[in-house]
Amino acid sequence: MNIIRYPERLEWNFLLKRSALQTESLRETVCEILEKVRTQGDRAVISYEEQFDKVKLNSLEVTEKEFEEAEKEVDIKLKAAIMLALNNIQTFHSSQKFASKKIETLPGVTCWQKAVAIEKVGLYVPGGTAPLFSTVLMLAAPAQIAGCKEIILCTPPNREGKIHPAILYAARVAGVKRVFKTGGIQAIGAMAYGTSSIPKVYKIFGPGNQFVTVAKQQVALRDVAIDMPAGPSEVAVLADETANPTFVASDLLSQAEHGADSQAILITTSETLIDKVAEEVDRQLSELPRKSLAEKSLQSSKLILVRNMQEAIDMINEYAPEHLIIETKDYTDIAEKITNAGSVFLGSYSPESAGDYASGTNHTLPTNGYAKAYSGVSLDSFIRKITFQEITREGIATIGPAIQVMAANEHLDAHKNAITVRLNEKL
Amino acid sequence: MNIIRYPERLEWNFLLKRSALQTESLRETVCEILEKVRTQGDRAVISYEEQFDKVKLNSLEVTEKEFEEAEKEVDIKLKAAIMLALNNIQTFHSSQKFASKKIETLPGVTCWQKAVAIEKVGLYVPGGTAPLFSTVLMLAAPAQIAGCKEIILCTPPNREGKIHPAILYAARVAGVKRVFKTGGIQAIGAMAYGTSSIPKVYKIFGPGNQFVTVAKQQVALRDVAIDMPAGPSEVAVLADETANPTFVASDLLSQAEHGADSQAILITTSETLIDKVAEEVDRQLSELPRKSLAEKSLQSSKLILVRNMQEAIDMINEYAPEHLIIETKDYTDIAEKITNAGSVFLGSYSPESAGDYASGTNHTLPTNGYAKAYSGVSLDSFIRKITFQEITREGIATIGPAIQVMAANEHLDAHKNAITVRLNEKL
Repeated sequence: MNIIRYPERLEWNFLLKRSALQTESLRETVCEILEKVRTQGDRAVISYEEQFDKVKLNSLEVTEKEFEEAEKEVDIKLKAAIMLALNNIQTFHSSQKFASKKIETLPGVTCWQKAVAIEKVGLYVPGGTAPLFSTVLMLAAPAQIAGCKEIILCTPPNREGKIHPAILYAARVAGVKRVFKTGGIQAIGAMAYGTSSIPKVYKIFGPGNQFVTVAKQQVALRDVAIDMPAGPSEVAVLADETANPTFVASDLLSQAEHGADSQAILITTSETLIDKVAEEVDRQLSELPRKSLAEKSLQSSKLILVRNMQEAIDMINEYAPEHLIIETKDYTDIAEKITNAGSVFLGSYSPESAGDYASGTNHTLPTNGYAKAYSGVSLDSFIRKITFQEITREGIATIGPAIQVMAANEHLDAHKNAITVRLNEKL
Repeated sequence: MNIIRYPERLEWNFLLKRSALQTESLRETVCEILEKVRTQGDRAVISYEEQFDKVKLNSLEVTEKEFEEAEKEVDIKLKAAIMLALNNIQTFHSSQKFASKKIETLPGVTCWQKAVAIEKVGLYVPGGTAPLFSTVLMLAAPAQIAGCKEIILCTPPNREGKIHPAILYAARVAGVKRVFKTGGIQAIGAMAYGTSSIPKVYKIFGPGNQFVTVAKQQVALRDVAIDMPAGPSEVAVLADETANPTFVASDLLSQAEHGADSQAILITTSETLIDKVAEEVDRQLSELPRKSLAEKSLQSSKLILVRNMQEAIDMINEYAPEHLIIETKDYTDIAEKITNAGSVFLGSYSPESAGDYASGTNHTLPTNGYAKAYSGVSLDSFIRKITFQEITREGIATIGPAIQVMAANEHLDAHKNAITVRLNEKL
């Protein structure tokens, strides 16, 4: 790990730089595959599954029988853990329901917003070595609470054409109606355009590699909404001399094990802590099965010593981390000053792992500095707020003349006339 | 206007088709200009202003003196109208403030969201024949209420290098701090990357032509967030035999005058109404100064007769109009069944003009069917909801074991270890 002591503000930008995403170079490949899926539907999806996932599929949809088998295969301990996590996620996301209120801006002029679920949503869950059933919970639970009618999920099958049972179990308990065996660009294309097996959706959610990210961005240009742009995961730990170095080290490592492009940063006012954390990282690393992956990711990670807590806070807000853990004595006061972060973990007993799985908060969060402009996934992500207005005869008499003046000044005479005909109405 | 009687459901898709946006063909031009702005900053912006807006600028920023002159030039009647509209917009958007609440998902596990303003936002207001000061109000007012620290605005100058005084007046009263004289692709690039005059922002808002739309989409791939994809404006009027044909005609025409690519659709259960509306449109059209523009736009507009109200509602939800006016006897019941629309206007005295200018609702709304997945601009557009969690020792003891099981099953051992070290802590 790199230790940096008292960097100047001018250096921050360079110091906090993320590895650049090579998205532009993938655009052509992605567009070619998307276009084939758009024009050839299932046939293209099945052929890309053979090419990329090395599997020959006859049909894309997971059958009821497969769901039942999965239910039997998942260990009871894992089922219980999934249900505990799901309950907490449901509790927290249910509390986010929007309560509409009618506002009379002037007598007879009433305006309000109403939350309406997005009717059709598509969830993407990546494949790879580990079955990301936690992501299934994080996306499906709020979709169900929001009231989305059609919740579908795409995830790549293994070479036997099977989906991991924990994914299917999580999908079923969290409210996913239909699961399809496809991944990568072709899955994104299928959900954006629809095929004869896979319904078109209005919004696509979920993480993925750079191909998936670029595919989501491409379909979002015209055909469908997406949750947010995604980059490699990252954590910043803000700690003072009261922090437990064992805990801090474990938090940095749990980020590092995500992959070589993840970033783990410690920002601290305590030189002693840096030394102890570095030691602890080495000790814990030696016991990790995914040691080599974490080791590589640690090369781009940093332990940064700053002059005081205000400088630490400024640096965090400049970095805008996806995850921020605050392990300091006065963490509540410090949390008040955080303006740019995806999700914030307070105190010694709030590791990122808790939010990744089971505390109730969502783990789909803005990476790559996007926390400056984007929120993480929440119930809001699955609804729209439609505005309504109801104006009475009295109301239009009050605001009508102002509208006439404004419309005339914008040279929109028919807009003005829509008021005039109403003001001139003879009853 | 085209009159269509009792179309079959299979025809709806074709019937409700919007004119396609030719965005792909503009990409190269847009990217070239963006790249020049990114690398050459002000120099590129000034040179594109000369090329596209035919104006030689020495500096881009509107001066205090120019603001003062504008203030003098705006007619007092228009000032009063702007202030009335601004008050209503402020009242409605202030009511949208998010009230954070702490949720204990399990004893010792507390989660909450906190609304934090996006620090730097950039508003774009197009040029053209009319000064769109109403758009200034719609974007700046919620930005100010949200608490955005830096609110800047870009709009193209005229050939004398001036901005229309009503734009500057609206900007000043609605809380815009700095205004810059630049439009089109170069304005979007300047706000996305920053130049020596124009600060980089985190999110860009506002309408524009296809070049602006494509530029916003391109910078949104990596550098900045945007409000939403934009297309030509549109209105659907849902009416029964009780509707006033004069009002309906005026509403269709006020959409049509926006330009040849706008769309105005009447969906009704009353054949008599169609005839009367068609007559009224002709009569009102003959009195409009922008007659030729509206006439052209009316060619792609439609009066559709359906079998019953349920069919009308289904058609509306399939179309997902930006604006929906419901002029029927039981409009409250019908409004309950609307699931896809940007903004809904209820009853005879709620014309679209009211929401365009002064009722208090926002007029920046999803077009092109995007209402199926996007909300219009609201206070939400200017904030992020950061999640927080605070877990106690007791709390982590409760949820820790479930997290350990889940992390182990996702092969994320360091995630598991971050729990283990805390559960094993000796006090």
